[in-house]
This record gives sequence, C-alpha cells and structure tokens, in this order.
Amino acid sequence: MRIVIALGGNALLPKGAKGTAEEQLSSAKQVVIQIEDMLKTNQVVLTHGNGPQVGNLLLQQQGTKEVPEMPLDVLGAMTQGQIGYFIASAISLTGLHSSTLITRVVVDQEDPAFANPTKPIGPFYETAVRPNMRMDAGSGYRLVVPSPKPVKIREHDAISALLEKGFVVIAVGGGGIPIKENGEGLEAVIDKDQATSLLANQVEAGLLVFVTSVDNVYLDFGKPTQRSISHTSIDILKKYLQSGHFAEGSMKPKVEAAIKFVESGGKKAIICSISNIKAAIDGKAGTAISK
Amino acid sequence: MRIVIALGGNALLPKGAKGTAEEQLSSAKQVVIQIEDMLKTNQVVLTHGNGPQVGNLLLQQQGTKEVPEMPLDVLGAMTQGQIGYFIASAISLTGLHSSTLITRVVVDQEDPAFANPTKPIGPFYETAVRPNMRMDAGSGYRLVVPSPKPVKIREHDAISALLEKGFVVIAVGGGGIPIKENGEGLEAVIDKDQATSLLANQVEAGLLVFVTSVDNVYLDFGKPTQRSISHTSIDILKKYLQSGHFAEGSMKPKVEAAIKFVESGGKKAIICSISNIKAAIDGKAGTAISK
Repeated sequence: MRIVIALGGNALLPKGAKGTAEEQLSSAKQVVIQIEDMLKTNQVVLTHGNGPQVGNLLLQQQGTKEVPEMPLDVLGAMTQGQIGYFIASAISLTGLHSSTLITRVVVDQEDPAFANPTKPIGPFYETAVRPNMRMDAGSGYRLVVPSPKPVKIREHDAISALLEKGFVVIAVGGGGIPIKENGEGLEAVIDKDQATSLLANQVEAGLLVFVTSVDNVYLDFGKPTQRSISHTSIDILKKYLQSGHFAEGSMKPKVEAAIKFVESGGKKAIICSISNIKAAIDGKAGTAISK
Repeated sequence: MRIVIALGGNALLPKGAKGTAEEQLSSAKQVVIQIEDMLKTNQVVLTHGNGPQVGNLLLQQQGTKEVPEMPLDVLGAMTQGQIGYFIASAISLTGLHSSTLITRVVVDQEDPAFANPTKPIGPFYETAVRPNMRMDAGSGYRLVVPSPKPVKIREHDAISALLEKGFVVIAVGGGGIPIKENGEGLEAVIDKDQATSLLANQVEAGLLVFVTSVDNVYLDFGKPTQRSISHTSIDILKKYLQSGHFAEGSMKPKVEAAIKFVESGGKKAIICSISNIKAAIDGKAGTAISK
C-alpha cells in the first residue's frame, strides 16, 4: 500500500528540547524504530514540520551582520535539508534506501494569509521581544509568519517515481517551500498537515497518517468529559469541528487535513501517536477517519 | 546522452559577491540559460560547490547563543537545500522538471584528511581572526576544514531513477554530506570535483563537464608563456600535473577529477567556462580529456 505519514513537530523534537543535532537525530531514530516494519512492506512518504528549526535558523541568520540573511523560502529549503538528513540517517540504520527531496509547493500569491501572519515559528519567549510575535497556545510568545494554503505539490511526480523504485521518500518538509506558479519563492511557511494531505491525494495514497503527541483525537480534550474517538466519518467529524472541539494550531489542522484528504478521494486517514502507529494501522488504536 | 555537470563556485557566486539570495538566484538563472538546450535533449545531473555558503552559514550559527549550532555535516545538508532550491527555481523558468536530492557520500573515517584540515570555506579575512584559518590563494585568510576522499555516492541509485524518468537532477551539492558506511555524519566538506567525478562513474555518464571561471585548462597559467589545451589524453595531462602546471584548490582538483573519471571507465571529461559550454560539448572550445 502507498502510505503518506506526517511526522508532527513533537515526534521529531520533544517539547522543551533545544533542537540540537543530537536531539533531532535521536528523535528521528525513535520514530523510525516504530515504523520500520511498515517501511519494509509499503511505499511510504514521510513528511515533517519545521516550526522550531526554521525559527532557530531565522534567529541565527539575524545573529551576525558579517554575511547576508536568507529569506524565509530559502530557510525552508535549508530546514528540509537539515531535517531530511536526520530522518535519512535514521533510515540508513534499517538497511532501507531513502531519498530526501527538496519540495516546492505552489500557493496563490493573492492568498489572504499574506496580509495576516498566523503561523508561529521558533522559540517561545516570555514577552514579545521582536515585531510580529504572538502568544502561542499559552506557552509563550513566538514569531508569526504568513501561512498560505497549498495549491499543488510541484515535486509530486518525482516523489511517485521514487516510491515506485522502492525508496522511502522524505518530502514536503515544513509544508514545502512556498512558490508562485512560475517558481518564484514567497516568504511564508505552509501548514505541513495541509500540504501532506494534498500530497497524499496527488500521489494517490491509500492511507494518510498524522503522527501527533496524543494517542487519539479527543472530544472535550483536557476536560473531565474527555473521550477518545476510534472510528468516525467526515460528516460527524465536521460537526465536532464546528462545535469547537479541536485546538487551533494543534488538533484542528490535522482533523481538517484528514477530512480534506477523504473528501478529495482518499480512502482513510488516521491520527495517532508514534507509539501506537502500528496498532492504529491495524485498526486497534488511534482515530480512523473515512467517508 | 547522460551528462554530469559540476558547477564551480564562481559560476553560482561571482567573486566579490556577498552571497545574498538575489545574487545566487540570478547566477543560477545565468547558468541555466547557457545549458537550457542541453537539459532538454540529455539526461543531466547538476552538481555544485558550497564553500562560500557553508562558511556563511557557519558564521551565522555562531552569531547567537540563543539556539544550538549545527555540526558541519548538517550545515552541508542545509546548503544543499539552499543552493539546490536556487538552481531548481532557475530550471522552473525553462518549463523543465527538476529534482533536488539531498545527497550523502560515504568516506573513510580513517581518512588522513581528518587530522589535516585543508578545505577553505566561508569569507576571506585580512587576518586569521579565528582558529583553523589559513591564507587561501593569496586573497586572504579563510577557515579550513577536513576534506576526506569520497568513496561511494549513497544516493546514486535514486539519481539514476530520476534521470530515467526525465528529471534534471540537482545532487551531490557541496561534494555531498560526508558519512560513515553506517550513515553516521562526519564533520568535513568533501571536494565537489572528486565527488562529482565519482558520481559520473557510478551513474555511468557518457560525459563529465567541469564548469569553471576560465575557458580552458592552461599551461603556464598567468605567465607570458600561457597556452591553452584543447584536447588531451590522461597520460599527457598526468605529466603536466607532475610538472606543477595546475593551481592547488583551483584547476588541479578538476584535472585530477577528470583523469579519475576517464581512468575509471568514463569516456570524456571537459573543463570549460559556462559561456563556452555549448561550444565545448561540440568540440569547439574548452579542454577535452579522454583516454
């Protein structure tokens, strides 16, 4: 089966981690151990976020006036190299062959997101120490950047070609590099869940998996009435969405991206934690979403 | 025909340039204009150096203590993303499809280069302002890092797969990320000419082209007796090498890499400038090296 797996920020960089190379590589190894069997028997694309890494890189860019700063699209490309390399290193230990592809994603340059930056990146601060910072999830202030909707994964045909040849493909890192139709870069960070969902449709994946920090999708998350969802349809899930069950910037984009995948022809999406991914694919854990 | 083209540092970042995104993208566009016809009628891999970019990135890493520095192998991966994206953007303007592949290169961890750093990276300084700096080509002091010999291009099979599917492949950036056989990264920068030559053999290219800042290989370069070489054999070239005709860190590694390619079964290598690359492939310019 062809499977697209989106690795959430927490899977690759635990909360509180500084983001050292050792931490990132170690996290990547933990992830690959959990999915090794799956990688060996399926065509798999791994996608990943880049929020902490691109934010860190941006700070470093601004740390010296000796050499020029790169714009955000270029920083996105650089974090794809960085994180992709960590994942590829982890996959090497299994004996499997992987390919890390720098991936561009076409967006609409008139997307209203460009006038309204909402995507938090980089470290948390106690106060808004720079312009364009906002409180993120009650944990502190973070820099926010525009996050336009992905329209087309430019490299989807190369990804399919590599899957057919038996490579584990690492792609669409950080949601992909935002470009105009003509290839020109745009300063933004695309939501990786949306971009992954689009990719899954474009490569006609049979299954889309969102790996996150919790085992399931929950209703009334964090309340005494909290309860998990094991299987659900997109119609029911849409109602839960409208009732405000899912947190912005956290579970909500995953639920929306899962619905989009199924609505666009995908068969099944799963939301689960990395430790229950095997059971989730066997239908014994996680939250499965279908038509 | 399958062609591997190594783009020299000067082709992508003119001497004296600061290394801004605009400069790099503009240079990439100039390069692609010269090779557009070739890209349309051949299977082409483009490789490139990363000396200025990886040096700049290293300085930026050290510019703030807020976030952790990445080691040199990770910085190499990041510059592959950066420079590959610039070249991919330029190729997009031709309507061709490209794939930028993060490329790792196995080296011997016992390579004596690790005890003797020789590869200059980053900006030039008037004095040795940091440890491990040396005078480079009389132009100033630069940081030097180990430069081990490439043993195996880990991603050569993915590169071949993408070439067969019609993609222009951008790979082995900065000579590739140096790794041990088990995939573990090593802090070094591989010579991109050597790595490109090895790739050309591994993907069984019919032609290997080194694009540099001069039109030809010259004997007595810069002297009143300077004369260009149009065609030559590896045996003759080896004699010139021994007589010290070619500058260290400049023409010498290209000549050595061209010889290695032909000795390892390659048919023809060419050394030329970007402006005469078309004529060089037609046998009307540049320096052609064969058995």
